[in-house]
Amino acid sequence: MKIALLAGDGIGPEIVAQAERVLRFLMADGLKMELESGLLGGCAVDATGEPFPEATRKLVIEADAVLLGAVGGLKYDNLPREKRPEQGLLTIRKTLNLFANLRPVILYPELANASTLKPEIVAGLDILIVRELTGDIYFGQPRGIEQRDGQRVGFNTMIYSESEIRRIAHIAFQAARRRQGKVCSVDKMNVLECTQLWRDIVTETAQTYPDVALTHMLVDNAAMQLVRDPKQFDVIVTGNMFGDILSDEASMLTGSIGMLPSASLNDQNKGLYEPIHGSAPDIAGKNIANPLATILSTAMMLRYSFNQEIAASRIEHAVKKVLKQGYRTADIFESGMKRVGTVEMGDAVLANM
Amino acid sequence: MKIALLAGDGIGPEIVAQAERVLRFLMADGLKMELESGLLGGCAVDATGEPFPEATRKLVIEADAVLLGAVGGLKYDNLPREKRPEQGLLTIRKTLNLFANLRPVILYPELANASTLKPEIVAGLDILIVRELTGDIYFGQPRGIEQRDGQRVGFNTMIYSESEIRRIAHIAFQAARRRQGKVCSVDKMNVLECTQLWRDIVTETAQTYPDVALTHMLVDNAAMQLVRDPKQFDVIVTGNMFGDILSDEASMLTGSIGMLPSASLNDQNKGLYEPIHGSAPDIAGKNIANPLATILSTAMMLRYSFNQEIAASRIEHAVKKVLKQGYRTADIFESGMKRVGTVEMGDAVLANM
Ligand SMILES: CC(C)[C@H](C(=O)O)[C@@H](O)C(=O)O
Ligand SMILES: CC(C)[C@H](C(=O)O)[C@@H](O)C(=O)O
Repeated sequence: MKIALLAGDGIGPEIVAQAERVLRFLMADGLKMELESGLLGGCAVDATGEPFPEATRKLVIEADAVLLGAVGGLKYDNLPREKRPEQGLLTIRKTLNLFANLRPVILYPELANASTLKPEIVAGLDILIVRELTGDIYFGQPRGIEQRDGQRVGFNTMIYSESEIRRIAHIAFQAARRRQGKVCSVDKMNVLECTQLWRDIVTETAQTYPDVALTHMLVDNAAMQLVRDPKQFDVIVTGNMFGDILSDEASMLTGSIGMLPSASLNDQNKGLYEPIHGSAPDIAGKNIANPLATILSTAMMLRYSFNQEIAASRIEHAVKKVLKQGYRTADIFESGMKRVGTVEMGDAVLANM
Repeated sequence: MKIALLAGDGIGPEIVAQAERVLRFLMADGLKMELESGLLGGCAVDATGEPFPEATRKLVIEADAVLLGAVGGLKYDNLPREKRPEQGLLTIRKTLNLFANLRPVILYPELANASTLKPEIVAGLDILIVRELTGDIYFGQPRGIEQRDGQRVGFNTMIYSESEIRRIAHIAFQAARRRQGKVCSVDKMNVLECTQLWRDIVTETAQTYPDVALTHMLVDNAAMQLVRDPKQFDVIVTGNMFGDILSDEASMLTGSIGMLPSASLNDQNKGLYEPIHGSAPDIAGKNIANPLATILSTAMMLRYSFNQEIAASRIEHAVKKVLKQGYRTADIFESGMKRVGTVEMGDAVLANM
């Protein structure tokens, strides 16, 4: 089991360092894994001029799974599009064919107060967002900015094929079987033909899963319902663009995005695992970032790419215990709790394993 | 001042009837207006086979302003795309060139409890969303579903020209001058070239408004920030698709979408005015729908299309008084308040005028 560690930018190195300690702890305990580090994003641009250098490409292609911190930072915002850190992330997704982005949105009971929503609306929240990650307007051609009739126009192409929709629908239905058995597919079929096809194919795929209840929702309504009554959802499946927006909205319902991991998988369960939060350059290097989302991402890695359910649960239980014991980084701190830094939070997790 | 009344489907006729009473009250009081009714949406399909019949096209082209109830209903969902009620709405927007959609998101102090967000997060909320309404992926060509390499693909085109972006940016900056002087422009420039042009043109246009503070935000972050801290926003300006999603999300923060009006304007301030809620077929014909959003839409009409600030304020004050007096339709009812039906709510507004 070879794991590529891509710490990335901003707080990336600090949080990945804590996740690496957890992995090394499990290795010392007998789990056979090999770790190798590489550069992605802004740090890669600084070192090589490219956000996704050839050495990193080789590394992630050889690896069985990738653990990523976060990429991006103000100083890279003015680089040409193809040199920006985000481009590294998009290229890695496409290169490894990581079409299935799984984002669990869970509100830990200990952190219920962190939400800006009323406790009764979010207590017990447990949604899985399944976002298609290698298609849609993110990658569609043609795209660009060009001169037409004497002025510039900017354009992009939203596009999905039947097979792209079908494979992500299968992922969602299968995930629902292991949960509450409900899938809500989100589209904008009343306006966009592309998402009309989405709805048709998801509906057709549902026939193979008579035990799963499928509903459809328009994206504008979904954005509302997540605020109005998020607990109505079990699994949400949607395209790349709508998934980007709705998954960020949903994660913020918990008030603690420093806690939420994600997995991006290909059809052989090779995956890239990363916290859903960003690189937070403003707090980088200060030992205050929350490493738990990254640590929980390693649990997803062990479960999805390596089928190591026991090791995965062990990490997740350690994180729950740490919360029960009152350890809090600044982002989730409340009075009465023990405020700790990034490294100390890593210590606390290890102590509970 | 000629006003076209398009009651539409579901609860449309009931809520427009109450708004019409308010307009007729002002007419009796000396305001010169002429009202004429027409068909749009499902009711038009039923009567003529078309969601936007020729007679309605003539009517709205001649009129100085349009008041719309709501369109759509389950029974029309299986019609071919070009016959669906929504198509009537999209065509009317395009025909009248209503590129500027203004959606104020206001939380009335009396209704603070209706929000699913904690009171301290939303108390005093007052955002204006300026959504571009005649461009973007809603109208971009090419679009469709076709066979490619042995399977169907669905595709749409996101597209904006400089001039389209510039005119909506002006609307946003001018609106900000009459408010707190802040504009947040929302895009996805890190992925989409179309919205890179958006950001460039908005930035350029801002130079004419040195008194307005411009910030930019990525759409995924905006979806989060609306949940995390909505009061950070004054005016939000964005494209048609992102505006559809974010404005619905924002309106739900208030918990009372039965209260929120909207205006869609062309460059001569001709406008279409409508509540932001839908046609709610499940409660149609039961005298329980909330007519206040439609009544408040007539206030926006008097202000934006007819420059009748006094009459507009008069309506808005009457609505505020009605809330203070405790009148509530079912959607905003709380114990201790006076529960009233659609007509009785209309009575209460008239009584306060
Ligand atoms: C950084 C950006 C390109 C990326 C996306 O839009 O997919 C991010 O927002 C995400 O959700 O992973
Ligand atoms: C009905 C639909 C076509 C419309 C839109 O997407 O613009 C609606 O959601 C709105 O926001 O007015």
